[in-house]
Amino acid sequence: MPKKVDHEARRQEISEALWRIAGTRGLDGASLRDVAAEAGISLGRLQHYFRTKDEMLAFALQHINRLANQRIRARIEALEGEPTPRQVLRACLSGMLPLDPESRTGTLVGAAYFHRAVHDETLRAEAKDGIPKLRAFFADQLRRAEERGELPPGRATEDEAMLLISLADGLSTYVLLDVHGPEQAMRLMDLQLANLFDRKETDPDH
Amino acid sequence: MPKKVDHEARRQEISEALWRIAGTRGLDGASLRDVAAEAGISLGRLQHYFRTKDEMLAFALQHINRLANQRIRARIEALEGEPTPRQVLRACLSGMLPLDPESRTGTLVGAAYFHRAVHDETLRAEAKDGIPKLRAFFADQLRRAEERGELPPGRATEDEAMLLISLADGLSTYVLLDVHGPEQAMRLMDLQLANLFDRKETDPDH
Repeated sequence: MPKKVDHEARRQEISEALWRIAGTRGLDGASLRDVAAEAGISLGRLQHYFRTKDEMLAFALQHINRLANQRIRARIEALEGEPTPRQVLRACLSGMLPLDPESRTGTLVGAAYFHRAVHDETLRAEAKDGIPKLRAFFADQLRRAEERGELPPGRATEDEAMLLISLADGLSTYVLLDVHGPEQAMRLMDLQLANLFDRKETDPDH
Repeated sequence: MPKKVDHEARRQEISEALWRIAGTRGLDGASLRDVAAEAGISLGRLQHYFRTKDEMLAFALQHINRLANQRIRARIEALEGEPTPRQVLRACLSGMLPLDPESRTGTLVGAAYFHRAVHDETLRAEAKDGIPKLRAFFADQLRRAEERGELPPGRATEDEAMLLISLADGLSTYVLLDVHGPEQAMRLMDLQLANLFDRKETDPDH
């Protein structure tokens, strides 16, 4: 097996050990040594791949984002015919919520990453970069919906896009805390979409 | 000075050391020993007050919730005349967002607590208990608004209340990550309130 592939497989194994810790006892206070032990390798060997916890979290987060993108793409492809912008948005938002064990672990690793990013500008750069891109994509879907006459006028804005994204984040937190279950989180997301797509100003002169 | 007061003052000092760490390098991986060092006392002395990091976080969270309640009450009292339900909701929601250094630190300590609560049922109980109470209070304000003819019919629901609460949580996360500033978070919160109060079904037969 070529060396490069071997390295990637090893990084993957370490990532999986990290996910198991994220899913069980949590990443708060988990050290590189803990992850090495979970992966069944020495600390020195782990540090050959990841020098710091931040490097390891960044790698795990990228992988989790890839999985989320695959999940979202699969949901969109599963739709009958040409999906509407509303269906595309709903598929993205459902892919952002912890609705199954895989996405739950993804949310936990993401939360651990963001928790450190608050105090680290380098880590924060990734979060700051990713969310505006997502917002632009969402706003674009809203504009497509408006053009198709499927969204009341004046609502295809970056702010409405940001409300959807921020809401997905808040709903996810409460799923992890058992305040509500995955189905209720999705139901609340659908309510937000219905409020966006199916309502207009009560007073047009307002 | 009576002993009881002395104990509370000491707990308070320890809490403040915890907040300083939360506000600067973050609580991920911060040990009881780190907090003792920051408070300028021995680990043994700190453990006289808090046996575990979880006990300490729970105390800090309670204190922060008291501060948030004071902030919200002050905002409501600052309103001219009898506040409308919408004004009460807006005051609560603005008190939940990290709009100044005090509430920012509160959000950080809360995030550290919730991060551990995901993996600990005892800690989770507090979160699970608090949010439904807040939701019930919000739903009650929505019902008052509907009775006063200030909210379109059919929107005084627990689900609409939960959307507001979840959104405050998501918007807070993005303030901490510098995705948007405090003013933008409040502007987005106001958009959600306007969508709730100023819009009706596009099709009443829908």
